[in-house]
Amino acid sequence: MKVLLVFAHPEPRSLNGALRDVAMKALEAQGHEVRVSDLYAGGWKSEIDRADFPSLETDTRFMPVAASKRAFETGALTEDVKTEIDKLLWADMLILQFPLWWFSMPAILKGWVERVYAYGFAYGVGEHSDKRWGDRYGEGTLAGKRAMLIVTTGGWEEHYSTRGVNGPIDDLLFPINHGILYYPGYAVLPPFVAYRVDGLDEAGFERAAERLRERMRTLESTPPIPYRQQNGGDYLIPSMELRPELGEPGATGFALHLNGADEGSETSGQRSPLQVAAAR
Amino acid sequence: MKVLLVFAHPEPRSLNGALRDVAMKALEAQGHEVRVSDLYAGGWKSEIDRADFPSLETDTRFMPVAASKRAFETGALTEDVKTEIDKLLWADMLILQFPLWWFSMPAILKGWVERVYAYGFAYGVGEHSDKRWGDRYGEGTLAGKRAMLIVTTGGWEEHYSTRGVNGPIDDLLFPINHGILYYPGYAVLPPFVAYRVDGLDEAGFERAAERLRERMRTLESTPPIPYRQQNGGDYLIPSMELRPELGEPGATGFALHLNGADEGSETSGQRSPLQVAAAR
Repeated sequence: MKVLLVFAHPEPRSLNGALRDVAMKALEAQGHEVRVSDLYAGGWKSEIDRADFPSLETDTRFMPVAASKRAFETGALTEDVKTEIDKLLWADMLILQFPLWWFSMPAILKGWVERVYAYGFAYGVGEHSDKRWGDRYGEGTLAGKRAMLIVTTGGWEEHYSTRGVNGPIDDLLFPINHGILYYPGYAVLPPFVAYRVDGLDEAGFERAAERLRERMRTLESTPPIPYRQQNGGDYLIPSMELRPELGEPGATGFALHLNGADEGSETSGQRSPLQVAAAR
Repeated sequence: MKVLLVFAHPEPRSLNGALRDVAMKALEAQGHEVRVSDLYAGGWKSEIDRADFPSLETDTRFMPVAASKRAFETGALTEDVKTEIDKLLWADMLILQFPLWWFSMPAILKGWVERVYAYGFAYGVGEHSDKRWGDRYGEGTLAGKRAMLIVTTGGWEEHYSTRGVNGPIDDLLFPINHGILYYPGYAVLPPFVAYRVDGLDEAGFERAAERLRERMRTLESTPPIPYRQQNGGDYLIPSMELRPELGEPGATGFALHLNGADEGSETSGQRSPLQVAAAR
């Protein structure tokens, strides 16, 4: 497989840097071809603004969506953005790696999404009719490819558990997994999360590294999170609400957008947090 | 009241720009003192990196948390960050205004949080013992102040409803409302959200503007979202899990961290989405 790893940490000599090296080594040992977008090292520009659309007339009101649409259609996106789009089209597998800062991705990675996810490429794709609401959520330009997150947190695993004060990690990552990865078509694998990473000792690092190696070895066989396809019949159009008869009884929030566990596949006897989420 | 409005849109002639003007006029008509941090106009630097810590020795490994702690303690933060911290200490009320991009705040605003929320100021505050796990989630440097979001979306209100495909808006905003605003102590008001803003006609704009004016008139009387205080006895320490006997029966995910509706106050006969969330 061709794998693109987008890396968003400012320090190569960090735990994130070490885990990235572990992941790359494991991927290469599997015979995968790996490319890296190291956002900090490459001086990635985080803010989407007028400078991204040099063909926009000086006095024109800047409307990000319209400007993005026109630039994508006319091949007028900036070179750094075009390079990233080409990498996304090249890769069979996208990995986003970052420390969880304030319960989301670092600004520099959010800015990568905002600038690279052009209109006509990652959104604004496909027809809108009474049967389809665009090619998104399971369909779209990047359908047929896989994606996953590698995330580190300072907080404890319990703090991110089902009843933990921070909120469950799967819910905190839903806006990314569902809203950023599943949206343009990726099949999204459960995230790799390393908790309590500040002051991790050598044995703790080795345990995390081994878990990560195992995930890298099983990229092709790991079942994706069973999100519901938008245009597969589960949602009313155009309100895009889940049909009243669907969803586990009593389920609310993000968990509604997972197919029931009976519809999902289980490769091992142990249920992942996401499979539990699907069943609740 | 003293109000700080942090504004994150690249175009002043946008709907966001127009709504900002509406908000400011309404606030000033109430006699409030208003300051604005216009991140795009001010050229805000989005990425937290070594340049934020000029006193860090060249060869030292850059650890963002440790560097932030030392810089805050020694008064060595950069001037742009110090200015924002002073504004936060000055203001009784913080408003973050932004378009919802990829189900979260724009990168430039996320970078404002990452850089301004220094260790010792917004996190890493207070004692850790068997009774307290730091001053956070309802306690902290900014306790006693209020905060709220002003958000615009291209998508329809139904798409962000309880069963909408994007996920419920209150859940999508939980990492910000709970994780960024409640965390350092703010009482968080329900967000103002304007949906389906692309191609809004004049009547539609006026309806949104009037809703916003009403929210600005009632800033001091609107009941905050009833999040649970971390150190108030509801959570086990140090696992920080909600005590097994608490939470509405069947409640899961973010909704667990709201006090039941019977404990919340209702100022009108109509229940807000957040009160519904609290009750579900």
